[in-house]
Amino acid sequence: MKLSVINPNTTRSMTETIASAARGVAAVGTEITPQTSEMGPVSIEGYYDEALAVPGLLQQLSRAEGQGAEAAIIACFDDTGLDAARAMAGIPVLGICQSALALASFIAQRYSIITTMERSRIPIEDLVRRYGHAERCKARAADIPVLSLEDPNSNARDRLRSEIATSILEDRAEAIILGCAGMAELAASLQAEFGLPVIDGVAAAVKQAEALTTLGLATSKGGVYAPPVAKPYHGLLEPFAPEQIQNA
Amino acid sequence: MKLSVINPNTTRSMTETIASAARGVAAVGTEITPQTSEMGPVSIEGYYDEALAVPGLLQQLSRAEGQGAEAAIIACFDDTGLDAARAMAGIPVLGICQSALALASFIAQRYSIITTMERSRIPIEDLVRRYGHAERCKARAADIPVLSLEDPNSNARDRLRSEIATSILEDRAEAIILGCAGMAELAASLQAEFGLPVIDGVAAAVKQAEALTTLGLATSKGGVYAPPVAKPYHGLLEPFAPEQIQNA
Amino acid sequence: MKLSVINPNTTRSMTETIASAARGVAAVGTEITPQTSEMGPVSIEGYYDEALAVPGLLQQLSRAEGQGAEAAIIACFDDTGLDAARAMAGIPVLGICQSALALASFIAQRYSIITTMERSRIPIEDLVRRYGHAERCKARAADIPVLSLEDPNSNARDRLRSEIATSILEDRAEAIILGCAGMAELAASLQAEFGLPVIDGVAAAVKQAEALTTLGLATSKGGVYAPPVAKPYHGLLEPFAPEQIQNA
Amino acid sequence: MKLSVINPNTTRSMTETIASAARGVAAVGTEITPQTSEMGPVSIEGYYDEALAVPGLLQQLSRAEGQGAEAAIIACFDDTGLDAARAMAGIPVLGICQSALALASFIAQRYSIITTMERSRIPIEDLVRRYGHAERCKARAADIPVLSLEDPNSNARDRLRSEIATSILEDRAEAIILGCAGMAELAASLQAEFGLPVIDGVAAAVKQAEALTTLGLATSKGGVYAPPVAKPYHGLLEPFAPEQIQNA
Amino acid sequence: MKLSVINPNTTRSMTETIASAARGVAAVGTEITPQTSEMGPVSIEGYYDEALAVPGLLQQLSRAEGQGAEAAIIACFDDTGLDAARAMAGIPVLGICQSALALASFIAQRYSIITTMERSRIPIEDLVRRYGHAERCKARAADIPVLSLEDPNSNARDRLRSEIATSILEDRAEAIILGCAGMAELAASLQAEFGLPVIDGVAAAVKQAEALTTLGLATSKGGVYAPPVAKPYHGLLEPFAPEQIQNA
Amino acid sequence: MKLSVINPNTTRSMTETIASAARGVAAVGTEITPQTSEMGPVSIEGYYDEALAVPGLLQQLSRAEGQGAEAAIIACFDDTGLDAARAMAGIPVLGICQSALALASFIAQRYSIITTMERSRIPIEDLVRRYGHAERCKARAADIPVLSLEDPNSNARDRLRSEIATSILEDRAEAIILGCAGMAELAASLQAEFGLPVIDGVAAAVKQAEALTTLGLATSKGGVYAPPVAKPYHGLLEPFAPEQIQNA
Repeated sequence: MKLSVINPNTTRSMTETIASAARGVAAVGTEITPQTSEMGPVSIEGYYDEALAVPGLLQQLSRAEGQGAEAAIIACFDDTGLDAARAMAGIPVLGICQSALALASFIAQRYSIITTMERSRIPIEDLVRRYGHAERCKARAADIPVLSLEDPNSNARDRLRSEIATSILEDRAEAIILGCAGMAELAASLQAEFGLPVIDGVAAAVKQAEALTTLGLATSKGGVYAPPVAKPYHGLLEPFAPEQIQNA
Repeated sequence: MKLSVINPNTTRSMTETIASAARGVAAVGTEITPQTSEMGPVSIEGYYDEALAVPGLLQQLSRAEGQGAEAAIIACFDDTGLDAARAMAGIPVLGICQSALALASFIAQRYSIITTMERSRIPIEDLVRRYGHAERCKARAADIPVLSLEDPNSNARDRLRSEIATSILEDRAEAIILGCAGMAELAASLQAEFGLPVIDGVAAAVKQAEALTTLGLATSKGGVYAPPVAKPYHGLLEPFAPEQIQNA
Repeated sequence: MKLSVINPNTTRSMTETIASAARGVAAVGTEITPQTSEMGPVSIEGYYDEALAVPGLLQQLSRAEGQGAEAAIIACFDDTGLDAARAMAGIPVLGICQSALALASFIAQRYSIITTMERSRIPIEDLVRRYGHAERCKARAADIPVLSLEDPNSNARDRLRSEIATSILEDRAEAIILGCAGMAELAASLQAEFGLPVIDGVAAAVKQAEALTTLGLATSKGGVYAPPVAKPYHGLLEPFAPEQIQNA
Repeated sequence: MKLSVINPNTTRSMTETIASAARGVAAVGTEITPQTSEMGPVSIEGYYDEALAVPGLLQQLSRAEGQGAEAAIIACFDDTGLDAARAMAGIPVLGICQSALALASFIAQRYSIITTMERSRIPIEDLVRRYGHAERCKARAADIPVLSLEDPNSNARDRLRSEIATSILEDRAEAIILGCAGMAELAASLQAEFGLPVIDGVAAAVKQAEALTTLGLATSKGGVYAPPVAKPYHGLLEPFAPEQIQNA
Repeated sequence: MKLSVINPNTTRSMTETIASAARGVAAVGTEITPQTSEMGPVSIEGYYDEALAVPGLLQQLSRAEGQGAEAAIIACFDDTGLDAARAMAGIPVLGICQSALALASFIAQRYSIITTMERSRIPIEDLVRRYGHAERCKARAADIPVLSLEDPNSNARDRLRSEIATSILEDRAEAIILGCAGMAELAASLQAEFGLPVIDGVAAAVKQAEALTTLGLATSKGGVYAPPVAKPYHGLLEPFAPEQIQNA
Repeated sequence: MKLSVINPNTTRSMTETIASAARGVAAVGTEITPQTSEMGPVSIEGYYDEALAVPGLLQQLSRAEGQGAEAAIIACFDDTGLDAARAMAGIPVLGICQSALALASFIAQRYSIITTMERSRIPIEDLVRRYGHAERCKARAADIPVLSLEDPNSNARDRLRSEIATSILEDRAEAIILGCAGMAELAASLQAEFGLPVIDGVAAAVKQAEALTTLGLATSKGGVYAPPVAKPYHGLLEPFAPEQIQNA
């Protein structure tokens, strides 16, 4: 299976982190195709960045589908543009937040998400509620910029560790979900350090994409995810008109 | 007060309908400034159109703020891009769905939204739940394309009427909310015809914008709506980088 | 528009505070008519006072409607008797808690109410839930008697300030709602002091009353707020029989 | 034990129905003391009647407590004034809606309340939600005036039967709760006729009152039900000032 | 009335504690028949013990019904096997958690359950939510093994006391529910010590059983609690086949 | 990976249906080990059967773990004994209801479960709520006995088809979940017939088990799923004492 893993921000080094996490768990026969958005913010921190990251990710998704991808993953923890992506694409599309929450609920009854900044925490709380996990899952912010995760001189990892420790103590978390795609490579070492399951959403989404594909399940097109109605788009976004998006 | 009313689709005739509804209820001293998006879909029907309408509306909003608007309204019933808009702007921003629901809750305990298409209905149900009205409000679709509302030869208004009648009978609706900005001009005649309150979101939002401005209340910048972090944006959307958006 | 602002307790000095807050935000053309209940408690602190304040406020409301008021506000933060008032009156009736919550939801995603006493806090929590804000709003008590707010020698304002500071820190409140009509005059100075929106329910309700009136919206009489059935009332409350209440 | 059963409307014939239902299930040693409100509406149909029934029932409750009652029941299905009563009285106070719902949840997972009029149905739905039964219990209105239950020539009982049949079919109700104190005497015959449990709230409340008294449990006075603060009341309701209510 | 009180663990000394609590509150005419499970765990601490306690309690329940019991109580706070028991038996079956919660809601608006171990606390939180009390009730664990409650040399009672004190302070609990049948005998002394209502579930369930029996109410057999379908059971549990269980 | 698929009823022909569905979707390298309960009911229809199926499934699960299984599936749609199984086992344990719901939420926003009998429907509704899908998922019963699914002369499949058609029409279901392990083989043909995704829980659980194993995630043992406390068990179930269960 050809699986597109889309980084919806434009930072290629983060795409590499994500691709590596995806490849590390892919089944035999799953080919990971990493893609980086070509338009929009260098990192997604809050509602504004998130909204402006959507066209770029839809563009990548459309290309991926055109090039034969059988499923796609949006590798940002706020599940950027997930509903629009599901409506646009014929292939299944997974979000890393939704995927991670599903796995957490199979192995624990109380789990916490550790994300980067407060302005990302509240949108994640909304996702947690929408996805039906509000009674079991808390979201915490380690108060670190997204790109600091890539900076070996920052104290980002220490702050992440400290927030995990707090969530175990105060939330009685039985499992931890890493709330940023940029944390993907840390799951194994944190799991070893804290002695409880630590879930990376990128890896979780890879397995869910494989699951859907194997089972012959794709996004239902009979309701809210029906394909966009053909219509003109104007201005800068004219190439995104439904009938034209694959060539955008 | 200078109040920007932004139509997030690119259809100018719909902007006129909206502007007329806004002017009809504006207080003395409120100057309505209608704006039409210059980029994106000609109408918003479902998640895909909605996502692609956001850059265009943010562009208009930024311009409005730069030109002295004291508050802004996003005139599409799915409250397109509302959170991103509130984070970006220093002035208060109102959604017409959220505004209409607030007024409905002051005059009725059971109310129904009549929107256009099924693919718009479910996103509206999500808004209804997020805004806290799920126990009192139902959403129904009249199964009509948005732009058919402007076509005197379509049966759109009859289908709308028929769905209102059903919601009174089956949902025991005590008030009706018109679930599309394009229906704004119909509120008064439908209220007269059905003998119960009929709420247009555009008008509702104008009054809420005036309320906030009079009371000296603006979007709180101390939490999830903090201004976007300054950072580069790439590609087609480079002009939307936080420090540059006013000139986009 | 003639707008009746009813203080449902019998303390006239508090009515003046309320009237002043209302006048300070009223639109040109809105005439504020303050009214003080003539029967019942001198302040409303908990369920018992609240229940006994209702006849007096209904009496004032009926008189107001008889004298041409076009809308009315019940100026006590527990929205005393609001449902009965809406059923009785033909004009729209606003509660200050419900009005303040609506405005808060337009400018923040996490907000806290600071009220007076613990016995008022839990009824307010119930309102917050009923009105659909439970996931975004917390209620706190500053542990001060209502009438101490009028006593310059009390430490009431200091305790209020201290509780606001705590709610910013612990609830991550992005906006504050003043949970007692007697605090109306403090909104502006607290907003300046704490640097985040501070909402007074009296002012909020004035703007909502103006909104409904301008839009031609009144309480729906087709359901739960249908006019009371004509029937005899006995004893002390005989004058409140539905057909007689205007003369009570 | 001396158990006060208070009819909060002024219709003595209904008090007799209620008293008879209470006596029919009282334990040996429980002395039922029926009381009829002396002030307020002849029947309670909707929010307005309900609010105006509260002073009369508090007056009766205070007298009952003064005369040695060890517990009290408010015999109206909208649990009129229940919170105020619990705050005022030192003895436990039961509502018939809350009592009936508790028993229903012990013997069924889906149950329906059949009440009189639509304007009573929605307040009951609110109680069902507040008491935590919303996921299991539906409320229906048979569209009959309260006092028609006492009129042998009305078709009230047929309409009640018809609505029970509908709730079994459409709600898959496993048990029925009679949603008006005036229906108390019908429980046994309806249970026989429909072959499923039919619960009368008056009887339910008698047993809950006996339970609390036997177990030495009374309303907690350490929180929201703390005794009313001593303070003056003015006008017609002056005798209801907290320190004076027993003599009202 | 003959009332079976079933201890679903095999520890007879705990049965005696339970029987004594039941007898202490039983009405004249209620004969308490204590029964101890003959198969399964010596104490119930978490999901595994709970599941394995069910066959033994169903066996006792079936015998009790065969011997003329008119109602039964399952005396373990996680309401072990309650739904299966209600489906199997023709007589009403009460759980002590559900019974205690019902009484608490009649006398307080905020109440806390103090149970033994963390692994019991989360299942109790689930019951609290299922029974509709999540907004009013918190669960806490005193971190004590169940059988330590019977050991005079353990510090179990001190830890229980300490957790009650914390719940009053931090949860603002107005009433306390003892979250283990083995705590039954402590209710009176703790109520005296802390000056607020302390509820024992065994006593609560006795009164609810009496209530149902007096009112002629039994488990509805028309829905989810319909009698088990006759069918073969195999292996060790063959005697539990629906048609044979009374002789198991 | 060695994956144990446990049929918690004793009907071997149903185990074969389940095993076949599991093998049809297993990854290369996944060895499906079907197991049939040796004690308990021949089919699980309602709470009583469900409770009595738990010891048999725990016995099989313990054996599977002893024989090197790396994960296990409980192949009954009411997720029989899932929490006890997770507490007992060191390996991950999947329920087919929970697994199917997770996949459905990735491809649709409205989905319906079609199960066998009404007495199974309500427990499934409880699972749907517990797992957080109540706002998106409805449960329906086709009113067919479980074992009739294996009888080519029954009309079971027609009734199933008819209920699917109804759920598409009335619930606006975008995807269908088969609510009984015995329906596993029908997913593909029903998906083709109805033209929307049809999800079999057995297949879904196989992929989730593979996901957890690949990712190195197992049930968290730090909270509610901590291993059972070592203690004696008595009577028929003595072999299930925590330290002995592997040899039961």
